[in-house]
Amino acid sequence: MTEVAAIGGYSDSERAAYAEIGAVFHDTLSDLLAAPEDERAGVRVVAYKHHQAFGAAEMDKLPALALIANYGVGYDAISIPDADARGVKVTNTPNVLNDDVADLAIAMLLMQARGLVQGDAWVRSGTWAKEGPPPLARKVSGSRAGVVGLGRIGREIADRLAALKLEVHYHSRSEKETPGWTYHADPVSLADAVDFLVVALVGGPETEHYVSREVIDALGPQGVIVNISRGSTIDEGAMLDALEQGGLAGAGLDVFQGEPKVDPRFLELDNVVLQPHVGSATHGTRADMGKLQRRNVTAFLAGDALETPVN
Amino acid sequence: MTEVAAIGGYSDSERAAYAEIGAVFHDTLSDLLAAPEDERAGVRVVAYKHHQAFGAAEMDKLPALALIANYGVGYDAISIPDADARGVKVTNTPNVLNDDVADLAIAMLLMQARGLVQGDAWVRSGTWAKEGPPPLARKVSGSRAGVVGLGRIGREIADRLAALKLEVHYHSRSEKETPGWTYHADPVSLADAVDFLVVALVGGPETEHYVSREVIDALGPQGVIVNISRGSTIDEGAMLDALEQGGLAGAGLDVFQGEPKVDPRFLELDNVVLQPHVGSATHGTRADMGKLQRRNVTAFLAGDALETPVN
Repeated sequence: MTEVAAIGGYSDSERAAYAEIGAVFHDTLSDLLAAPEDERAGVRVVAYKHHQAFGAAEMDKLPALALIANYGVGYDAISIPDADARGVKVTNTPNVLNDDVADLAIAMLLMQARGLVQGDAWVRSGTWAKEGPPPLARKVSGSRAGVVGLGRIGREIADRLAALKLEVHYHSRSEKETPGWTYHADPVSLADAVDFLVVALVGGPETEHYVSREVIDALGPQGVIVNISRGSTIDEGAMLDALEQGGLAGAGLDVFQGEPKVDPRFLELDNVVLQPHVGSATHGTRADMGKLQRRNVTAFLAGDALETPVN
Repeated sequence: MTEVAAIGGYSDSERAAYAEIGAVFHDTLSDLLAAPEDERAGVRVVAYKHHQAFGAAEMDKLPALALIANYGVGYDAISIPDADARGVKVTNTPNVLNDDVADLAIAMLLMQARGLVQGDAWVRSGTWAKEGPPPLARKVSGSRAGVVGLGRIGREIADRLAALKLEVHYHSRSEKETPGWTYHADPVSLADAVDFLVVALVGGPETEHYVSREVIDALGPQGVIVNISRGSTIDEGAMLDALEQGGLAGAGLDVFQGEPKVDPRFLELDNVVLQPHVGSATHGTRADMGKLQRRNVTAFLAGDALETPVN
């Protein structure tokens, strides 16, 4: 009887590790749910590397399900209330990706402010030799940055912003112990106080459009948004309006509503840096995420404590 | 009689400030040297924003020359021995650009390692939606970085590398007081010890091809070079050979031999990030550089001490 189903696109070494514990593989959750009932009935553990919604309807087709081990820190595809109601445990892979995600936030901020995608094209197209230097860009040091959501990733970002000599502000549900960073009780006040706004919220319904039109307006024409969290955390339509009409200076975005499809309005903009959700997409970190996911699976199968439980 | 000649492309506000002290303007040093003898004879101060060689031959056509106030920290276009021999003082504009240059070094390092120019194109071309995520990239944190030349800019870069959780090594003429960074007495030893090599040397004949073929070989197939100093500091032919043949993993380059012309071999490479010498190219820093250059000019004219003398 198969106890473990591994869903999503795993690397060869990851597949080998799951094969060792007898896992079956499916590309998508739908594929598993379409499997014969006797296969589904035996599945106690789903190793999940997918963004398809995993709620009551899906869980009910897996009557023995007891653990969903998510690959990734963000588990917004999985309904925790539905899991709780069925006694299903959920784990994720926090921390091992913090540095990569924070590095990407910093890189996108610098790339946007300094015009570096354009700079590379300026050299490659021969424009430098033909027309001289590109327009002057924007200095980053000495500016004010605001972090929305001061969890583990938010802190890594704030540390790096401080090292780049930006004045650090932040907003989170409650004030936290920090090295002198300025707390704002609401996101509009934060946006109003800073030049660069970096969004490091968790995803899910509670943070949907948390960066609202009002927050975007408060950030204003000199403001730049950086988002490494989830596309859902920003009112994307309001952000696009502002980016198109001079209401914002620019954006650096790794995540989008409906990704991997991206609103074509983004593609017309030259004041945005766009990335294909690569916050944790390095060999080292993806390997570490896979190991942590598997440690949760094997701990569960052995009856040991889960390393990184969510619920 | 004109005492001040401003050479190069100044902004409107800079031109206005120089016009106030009666400066004449020329696009290039050659233009000034082609001026009538009575104009040249009166020039005591050259405010210099140009990369044309300024040595004995040029100085001898300006018999009253007493100050060359260079715009930029790098004054390798100006021959200091020739200036010394004629009692000509030289000033530059250090420090005000350190943060911008260090920020660019960090940005290019992250962009190269994480494939971010390619990432932006991956989204814009629709490849993400059509073909899925791009190949995995390289994790930066936990790696080893080496700084060649630990002057003021080198230190700013090293501080930022440490904040990104890289192990910091450096090479300079002598060991310096540092927060535990590892000193290497020669550049080959440094290159051998690190993954990322950031070049922050001064330009000029003494550092020509300081990053030699031997240094590049020591850095090796996993190594990445970042250069924000001068194109002359690296043996560019050796670096191109290595980049083309797998002898280096990549490079992030803001400066080139013979710039703004760039060796066309660079344009064929997808493992390099190329920038058109924009280390200090922000509105804020360029304004500060202009102010410092002018403070040196006005101090000289008033008989006061120079703020940032080179010789």
